[in-house]
Amino acid sequence: MVNPNVSVDCVVFGFDGDGLNVLLIEQKDVGQRIRLALPGDLVLDEESLHEAAQRVLWELTGLEGVYLHQCGAFGDPNRVRDVKDLAWLQSYRENPQARVITVAYFALLKSEDFNPHASSFAERVFWHPVYQVPELAFDHNAIFSQALRILRKEMRHRQVGHELLPEKFTLSQLQTLHEAIFGEMLDKRNFRKKIIKEMWVLPLEEKQKGVVHKPARLYEINANTPVLEE
Amino acid sequence: MVNPNVSVDCVVFGFDGDGLNVLLIEQKDVGQRIRLALPGDLVLDEESLHEAAQRVLWELTGLEGVYLHQCGAFGDPNRVRDVKDLAWLQSYRENPQARVITVAYFALLKSEDFNPHASSFAERVFWHPVYQVPELAFDHNAIFSQALRILRKEMRHRQVGHELLPEKFTLSQLQTLHEAIFGEMLDKRNFRKKIIKEMWVLPLEEKQKGVVHKPARLYEINANTPVLEE
Repeated sequence: MVNPNVSVDCVVFGFDGDGLNVLLIEQKDVGQRIRLALPGDLVLDEESLHEAAQRVLWELTGLEGVYLHQCGAFGDPNRVRDVKDLAWLQSYRENPQARVITVAYFALLKSEDFNPHASSFAERVFWHPVYQVPELAFDHNAIFSQALRILRKEMRHRQVGHELLPEKFTLSQLQTLHEAIFGEMLDKRNFRKKIIKEMWVLPLEEKQKGVVHKPARLYEINANTPVLEE
Repeated sequence: MVNPNVSVDCVVFGFDGDGLNVLLIEQKDVGQRIRLALPGDLVLDEESLHEAAQRVLWELTGLEGVYLHQCGAFGDPNRVRDVKDLAWLQSYRENPQARVITVAYFALLKSEDFNPHASSFAERVFWHPVYQVPELAFDHNAIFSQALRILRKEMRHRQVGHELLPEKFTLSQLQTLHEAIFGEMLDKRNFRKKIIKEMWVLPLEEKQKGVVHKPARLYEINANTPVLEE
């Protein structure tokens, strides 16, 4: 049985080696109007919130084995009463009037490792750059923004991000990742100074191979970065 | 109207200048058995989750003006099906079978600034030390533990805690606060070295007044602590 009052929504961030994207689905309502949304749906009675998030993500986008973290509950009484959402609610929900509280989950992954494909009520699934995200269903723009804020905070505290880099990487690759996540160009000199000073990475006695330009030194994550433990 | 599927629970931490406590309520079920719980209740249809948390805390404990942060949603399908909770659910809930997802909030305050008093279905309200918390209703022990974990994390990242100290304080006062929140005795020398090194505090050209022992230097919070912004 579906619980009419509680849903989950997933903000899946994908790094493609260059930029940061968010996974969106396209839906159609009865009037065939297209709307974009985060993958999300009501929870079933016998599943936990975390199980619901995994199921819903899989059903709508085919993504499996994604490590999802909870990133907030959203319960404004008007969050599913906007006129833009009524037609869709009337097409897809047994009780379109029901108040729905949603629990948001987020994930950060290398987009090349996953191959999303639309199913269930998703007509299409695609990666969209995290800047200029268009208008989304319900309060999904607010959910997206909060997830991005938390992602950036965790990146600052060095709790996420490592897994997006190869085991050995150049400082340029690290800078590209930072620029993608923080959405801003960084000054190369200041960035390198800061990274070295904070001991986030350790230099290796090894350089890039098979590049046409002068090979750059390789680094690895310092497993013992100070202070910022969970 | 009460929403049968969604509740809020509040983990209110109080620092008394010496130790850290959590605010608990005592309830009675039909059989007059006493049970202890975090202050919490179902949300009303027309209030946001945050408004619900403020209302419920006020109704049960008389606390007003508390700054509450969300700290997680708890939705195990069995969280309100434990045999220890049945009698109470049957006394107080219109639909004792309903699955309830709860959204947890936490707060950290100086306990001397607030004067809790029990009302509504709370028979008694009291501060309990954060160690050796007894068995609580539903999954409230798990909610409490998560809130404490988040509190400690935020304290490590210097996002909370300042407000519990006077504007000018001694390093001993700061150490007492750290010991209360982390629940462990700290070595005085190492603690001072770390605090100074991380530039959390700035020394003032001022000492304690009106003490019988040798007056200690006063410090203030460094508003410009590096790196650990939100």
